[in-house]
Amino acid sequence: MIGVIATLRIQEGKASEFEAFFTELAQQVRANEAGNVAYQLTKSRSEPNTYKVLELYKDQDALTHHGGTDYFKAAGPKFAAVLGGRPEIEYLDGVG
Amino acid sequence: MIGVIATLRIQEGKASEFEAFFTELAQQVRANEAGNVAYQLTKSRSEPNTYKVLELYKDQDALTHHGGTDYFKAAGPKFAAVLGGRPEIEYLDGVG
Repeated sequence: MIGVIATLRIQEGKASEFEAFFTELAQQVRANEAGNVAYQLTKSRSEPNTYKVLELYKDQDALTHHGGTDYFKAAGPKFAAVLGGRPEIEYLDGVG
Repeated sequence: MIGVIATLRIQEGKASEFEAFFTELAQQVRANEAGNVAYQLTKSRSEPNTYKVLELYKDQDALTHHGGTDYFKAAGPKFAAVLGGRPEIEYLDGVG
């Protein structure tokens, strides 16, 4: 198992736009990726305009496949339009 | 949905002991908690002796139930024996 925590800071006033397209993206991930175990958008309770995506993949192949899908690539310009800074992506190795 | 990221710093030399009892705990959570959606132990690639538990619960009731189970309470002294510092528990609100 591989875990990912993606921290995304969104521009003021762009939260609705971001949540709308990310919800669609998450639906596509869940519907199409057998190697994806979890892909959940969450919002920070302490940091304003900050979201964390909690992701779990069966293995590195599943994570690599996720990044190469057409819908993930197509989301690139949508992220660029709402992000207020560089995303922080943390990779973690599953235990047990 | 509610997300939790629990960051646990483990004492030098206690990693095996920690991983063994946590793996058992995770099995009990998955087997007994209908409201638990994910409960995955992961190890940091960048910070030594540091683990993050990625957790998802259907709602606050499910999270409250988790904290009150006999097996979670029984794990308390086991955590105390291996933790190298206070755990950091971050709560996040699910979106979508």
